[in-house]
Amino acid sequence: MLRVLPFRAMPGLIECVPNVSEGRRPDVVDRLVAAVRAVEGVRLLDRTSDADHNRSVITFAGPPDPVEAAAHALVDAAIREIDLRAHQGEHPRLGAVDVVPFVPLAGTTMEDCVALAHRFGRAVAERHGIPVYFYAKAATRPERVRLPDIRRPQFEGLPDVIGTTHVPDAGPARTHPTAGALVTGARPPLIAFNIELDTADVAVAKRIAKEIRESSGGLPAVQALGFALTDPPRAQVSMNLLDTSVTSLARVWREVETRAVGAGTRILRGELVGLMPLDAALAVTRDALRLEGLARDRVIEAHFID
Amino acid sequence: MLRVLPFRAMPGLIECVPNVSEGRRPDVVDRLVAAVRAVEGVRLLDRTSDADHNRSVITFAGPPDPVEAAAHALVDAAIREIDLRAHQGEHPRLGAVDVVPFVPLAGTTMEDCVALAHRFGRAVAERHGIPVYFYAKAATRPERVRLPDIRRPQFEGLPDVIGTTHVPDAGPARTHPTAGALVTGARPPLIAFNIELDTADVAVAKRIAKEIRESSGGLPAVQALGFALTDPPRAQVSMNLLDTSVTSLARVWREVETRAVGAGTRILRGELVGLMPLDAALAVTRDALRLEGLARDRVIEAHFID
Repeated sequence: MLRVLPFRAMPGLIECVPNVSEGRRPDVVDRLVAAVRAVEGVRLLDRTSDADHNRSVITFAGPPDPVEAAAHALVDAAIREIDLRAHQGEHPRLGAVDVVPFVPLAGTTMEDCVALAHRFGRAVAERHGIPVYFYAKAATRPERVRLPDIRRPQFEGLPDVIGTTHVPDAGPARTHPTAGALVTGARPPLIAFNIELDTADVAVAKRIAKEIRESSGGLPAVQALGFALTDPPRAQVSMNLLDTSVTSLARVWREVETRAVGAGTRILRGELVGLMPLDAALAVTRDALRLEGLARDRVIEAHFID
Repeated sequence: MLRVLPFRAMPGLIECVPNVSEGRRPDVVDRLVAAVRAVEGVRLLDRTSDADHNRSVITFAGPPDPVEAAAHALVDAAIREIDLRAHQGEHPRLGAVDVVPFVPLAGTTMEDCVALAHRFGRAVAERHGIPVYFYAKAATRPERVRLPDIRRPQFEGLPDVIGTTHVPDAGPARTHPTAGALVTGARPPLIAFNIELDTADVAVAKRIAKEIRESSGGLPAVQALGFALTDPPRAQVSMNLLDTSVTSLARVWREVETRAVGAGTRILRGELVGLMPLDAALAVTRDALRLEGLARDRVIEAHFID
């Protein structure tokens, strides 16, 4: 009996989720998106613009080299198109391209994404003479891990602190006149996942959300809020899972289920907002069938991802 | 708020699982495998040879055109290398290349595979002057759906019936002197899945297997047997799931779990033998999180399969 399972070398995939400070002029966002799509090997996964925030999120993915090229193409276009001096919106922001996170997918690691963020950030600083900050897993000091901490002074207040608390990680200690500054870094994939309960009592969802979210001492890497859905009236636990390698979808499901049953109700259904990475889906399969060995290489089609 | 999710056109993937009548001469199997691997775009997923059966199973996958080319390359090599007049083994067989099933994976349909099996079978009949039968979803008549029915006369008995019950679907009504005949067709992916129970009592596994398998009136498209594992001693329900779109992995799990608990024991773990298709894994995730809308296009990496 001979048996061989040859696995190919994959270049791997990286996701990039730039947030740009423009959500009201669709023609501008169109041109930014076009700059990304023009890079061969990159696929646009989502674009979402919010007029109140005056902000857009553009999600794309591909092998590391095309993703890096597309991120540069986006920054080039955004710096050409966006003048932060004329920008107003509810969402705090530091730059025309406010933040550029790189996210490891199948075949790449967090270390790959940290290295990419550092290289990309230094190149952006050099090309455009713009101050650049490294955040999340790419942060070079503790006070730069959290994005809100870096963004606190906003574009308007940055000149006052750029020489003291906000000395950039790359580029000049001088706010770019129209583009402000740019934050880049590496983080795990974010999964937006909601659970609908078989009750209209929003207090149940709010209580469960409070119990499970990290900020009130619950599950690590989980953000959660309770909402009331209207048609039909139902309570919903709405979550952002910031790192499913720390707290998995299956764990979240069980924690909500236990509490729902304890409150005399039950889970009706889950809802995935947007997309999820393959590994997070396989982790659920592994958990449900107690398949300890289940990894990507046991899925036929995963051998053809590139 | 604008939102666009562009999905790319995929050529799709097809799996091919030829069974050849040679399991004792590794050099011969090496050359058959080399013929498959020489086709660009095709990936070898597995090769398994059994000396008692004197038979090998070669599993490969890729986009439809390369898979078709590789199947032809394999048949060409096998007809050159294998002389059935000198072949002995426990497993029934009709030909040097005994059966060539095509299996739809991500991005292809059963209809694609039926069309491919018919085209491939007619081309093989033409190239090699060999009788060809279509089976499973590609069968042209009810008595040719099941492989054992077609294979019953075996290589040695085929000449007696090839003009009556076994008139081929393509090619001459005359057994090929060294290669016999060839069966090809289309079928769903087969998943080999075992469940280990927290008991050493093999009778429990045998009873559960009997209750859930299709042949004793259980779940459709499920084959099951109860086995005793020795180290440590444990009862195992060993299954072939012939069509998880009919009976899913999650359904099988629940049926075994209910019966295990009823027998005073419980499931310890699942075991996947070999590989599984992406859709079968996602169906488990969909079931566990009650994500009705979860399909392949919600998985980021699935947009890069080709």
